[in-house]
Amino acid sequence: MTVRKAVTTRAVTEVDEFDIDTDVLVVGYGAAGAAAAFEAARAGARVLVVDRAGGAGGASALSGGEIYLGGGTPVQRACGFDDTPEEMAAFLTAALGPSADPAKIAEYCAGSVEHFHWLVDRGVPFTPSLWDAPTWVPPTDDGLMWLGENSWPFTESARPAPRGHRPAAHDFGGRLLMECLTEAAETARAGTLFDTYVTNLVIAEDRTVIGVVARRYGREIAIRARRGVILTTGGFVDNDAMLAAHAPHLLGHTKVSAGTDDGSGILMAQALGAGVRHMGAGQVGISLIPGLAARGMVVNARGQRFVNEDTYPGRIGQAALFRQNMGGAWAGGDTAVWVIVDEEGFEAVPEPQRWGVRPTHVGETPEELERLTGLPDGALVDTVRRYNEFAARGADLDFHKASRWLRPLTPPLAAIDVKAGVRPPAESGDRRGTGASVFTLGGLHTDLDGHVLDLGGSSIGGLFAAGRVANGLHGFGYISGTSLGDGTFFGRRAGTAAARNE
Amino acid sequence: MTVRKAVTTRAVTEVDEFDIDTDVLVVGYGAAGAAAAFEAARAGARVLVVDRAGGAGGASALSGGEIYLGGGTPVQRACGFDDTPEEMAAFLTAALGPSADPAKIAEYCAGSVEHFHWLVDRGVPFTPSLWDAPTWVPPTDDGLMWLGENSWPFTESARPAPRGHRPAAHDFGGRLLMECLTEAAETARAGTLFDTYVTNLVIAEDRTVIGVVARRYGREIAIRARRGVILTTGGFVDNDAMLAAHAPHLLGHTKVSAGTDDGSGILMAQALGAGVRHMGAGQVGISLIPGLAARGMVVNARGQRFVNEDTYPGRIGQAALFRQNMGGAWAGGDTAVWVIVDEEGFEAVPEPQRWGVRPTHVGETPEELERLTGLPDGALVDTVRRYNEFAARGADLDFHKASRWLRPLTPPLAAIDVKAGVRPPAESGDRRGTGASVFTLGGLHTDLDGHVLDLGGSSIGGLFAAGRVANGLHGFGYISGTSLGDGTFFGRRAGTAAARNE
Repeated sequence: MTVRKAVTTRAVTEVDEFDIDTDVLVVGYGAAGAAAAFEAARAGARVLVVDRAGGAGGASALSGGEIYLGGGTPVQRACGFDDTPEEMAAFLTAALGPSADPAKIAEYCAGSVEHFHWLVDRGVPFTPSLWDAPTWVPPTDDGLMWLGENSWPFTESARPAPRGHRPAAHDFGGRLLMECLTEAAETARAGTLFDTYVTNLVIAEDRTVIGVVARRYGREIAIRARRGVILTTGGFVDNDAMLAAHAPHLLGHTKVSAGTDDGSGILMAQALGAGVRHMGAGQVGISLIPGLAARGMVVNARGQRFVNEDTYPGRIGQAALFRQNMGGAWAGGDTAVWVIVDEEGFEAVPEPQRWGVRPTHVGETPEELERLTGLPDGALVDTVRRYNEFAARGADLDFHKASRWLRPLTPPLAAIDVKAGVRPPAESGDRRGTGASVFTLGGLHTDLDGHVLDLGGSSIGGLFAAGRVANGLHGFGYISGTSLGDGTFFGRRAGTAAARNE
Repeated sequence: MTVRKAVTTRAVTEVDEFDIDTDVLVVGYGAAGAAAAFEAARAGARVLVVDRAGGAGGASALSGGEIYLGGGTPVQRACGFDDTPEEMAAFLTAALGPSADPAKIAEYCAGSVEHFHWLVDRGVPFTPSLWDAPTWVPPTDDGLMWLGENSWPFTESARPAPRGHRPAAHDFGGRLLMECLTEAAETARAGTLFDTYVTNLVIAEDRTVIGVVARRYGREIAIRARRGVILTTGGFVDNDAMLAAHAPHLLGHTKVSAGTDDGSGILMAQALGAGVRHMGAGQVGISLIPGLAARGMVVNARGQRFVNEDTYPGRIGQAALFRQNMGGAWAGGDTAVWVIVDEEGFEAVPEPQRWGVRPTHVGETPEELERLTGLPDGALVDTVRRYNEFAARGADLDFHKASRWLRPLTPPLAAIDVKAGVRPPAESGDRRGTGASVFTLGGLHTDLDGHVLDLGGSSIGGLFAAGRVANGLHGFGYISGTSLGDGTFFGRRAGTAAARNE
């Protein structure tokens, strides 16, 4: 049994005096916190944002900066794509399922164009051009990218349109996004207090949340929040005891976080009776180069294909980790996942976009590559033959990869062991050599205004949440940009609702 | 958002008077409740068992009655098997993982021979003979059966010994087991009260649990429990809102329960701050005849094999549902799973043991069967060829099915659509035609004495749990007999601990 420090709620009678008094307290200064702080301040509330780190940013600032937006944004239209909130919702329902929140998805998609303009008004720049190939992070400042919308099975349920919007930064745009959002929050006169780790919620006699207790430089301080506390503390990927209890498949992989996703916000709210959803769900950044995978095959330890290689790469990662036992969470051992590609496919991805990935094995024939990689006799031979038949007829009968990416693989063939990883560390940056970098999607149950809901589905007075501390839009699936997306979108709602909670 | 009735804890000050006074109150009269009641009464406590139904039994009485026992029981020895607690623990760690509870597994295995004798002393009969083929429920009164121990990958980590112990009843033994356990509890002078649905825990000012409030024939009654309340209320497979929040893959399938696994015990304890574990985990009874599967191939919608067909059939079910998208929880639609078998394999399973299953398609050649079943061109042809090569060399290089079950498949070949189901309903009885019948494994976090633990891992005064309301031994894997096994084993511990809680 893992012994953890108990998380308790403090009664106001246990608090001698409040050191700080504000209207709205935002706990955590990533993208969700900044969006919440901005809106709360703009609505006229006194706002304080605290963060345990020495400055703003959190995991948001380390991210690629993609924000999932659509329904007909100016960037989509400039790139020649029609889109509607309904098509966007149909895609997200399929991609974020099972059991993605239909009401949140509908609201998010209906408000997406407005949210785009809100980001632009906060200074976030989007270049109106498209990066048109599978990738984790385009090497350009293109403002639009596909995130699986034009891949099977999503092509069956929604008209494809690219919706990955990215700030105009080469490579990782999270830092730029955070600069814009924190400047907006501070211009709106939200105050900040860093090096402050919130440990307990403070409740009134009627169990309404009226403040917090925090540790700051070894001292305990109490902060009064007259209109509400908004938790934007992130997920729990840094808490191995919580992973073991709820999402053990994610244990042992590289953690995508700023090192502070310890689940504290979830636990503080649960101690007050909050409900949670989908605590077993996780995003899986698989350590492969999507452009190489799309031009070749991805196979499991039996040499079988298991996914269309042109889809959103996080979907390949989830399939590898949750279904193919990469990582070895299930009995049978940590199994390999391989990218198989020929020279033409390898060279088609420019060297800088390969992030240092090289073939781990090269065979003059499929038979030789099979021997070198230790795949079972005949497995790769069969799979290459079948794949090349599909390429010849222009149709992938098994996994429906788009014909654009289907081309017979011509020996010599290279195999890339996904566990050899991607260097340098990137959004898919697997620093431990497990083939995967992960974060959690499960979290607090919230309503459309960010109220935290209790086990019976009623809102808890004075308590709000947004960003990865909440479950947000997500079922067990994931698409890049939906974290910064739902964090900022519902963070804004939470900020507005808290400010009005007089 | 699903609106549920709020679950609240009642302060003792809100209870006018207690209608009934006892020492130990057991809530739920399945196998765990009966075991707890017996031990609490034997330890000298006044015991009352309540159940919402009109009599004892719950899901336990509807089950096959298997109890997972080993470490060298008399039945194992009589059948010629050596076994040790260490081998048993190694198997369970692999089979119940990821993140199965190591302390509980060690305790359970160390105490397993004693627990066998306890069951025998309660009158549970075990015939000392072995049923030696994969099955859900043997059609004999054999007291011992394999539950995957002699199948890959478990053969890699533990010396195989059969550990499925079953009461001497033809077919389903759960009713006989429950008759023995309830008679034991009542002989030990545990009282019973039926038609009584517990709705709230009652707590003292120090938050210790001191009783419950229940509904009985439309009236609210309060029961004082001076030494403790033991929750044995079952899982939450009958609560679709909880499934959507925690285990959406299980939605829509046949529910293995007595219709009362509504999660009420979990919610009542959570309202008091209890922690939970592995709420996404589920057992999957796949609607196939294990003896047919072992003699043939199980393939997915691409005609690929994905598991060794001679393993514990629940493992095939978990793989089908969680990894092959049978049920369609993930995007891409509800995909088929097929059993492919030839005439010799089909006839080798006696007609009564086929539970009415018939081929849904028959082809004179693999090519014809492929066309009839709609499998992609060439898929089944490749897989049959590869399988027959493995059979010829006596080694399944892909999934390591034991050579005993490897035999070339000779046309004509039959395909059985798993979603066509199994009739009559059985332990694997899929009454809705989805191909699966399911129950939940996640639940309350408990210690070795059945104390319910809070979010920080500290025990909650006066509150115990056992059976499927608790997470017990389980990670995300499952083996038949571990539910009745951990329910009765840790139910006994909880009963003893509660009786001593003066």
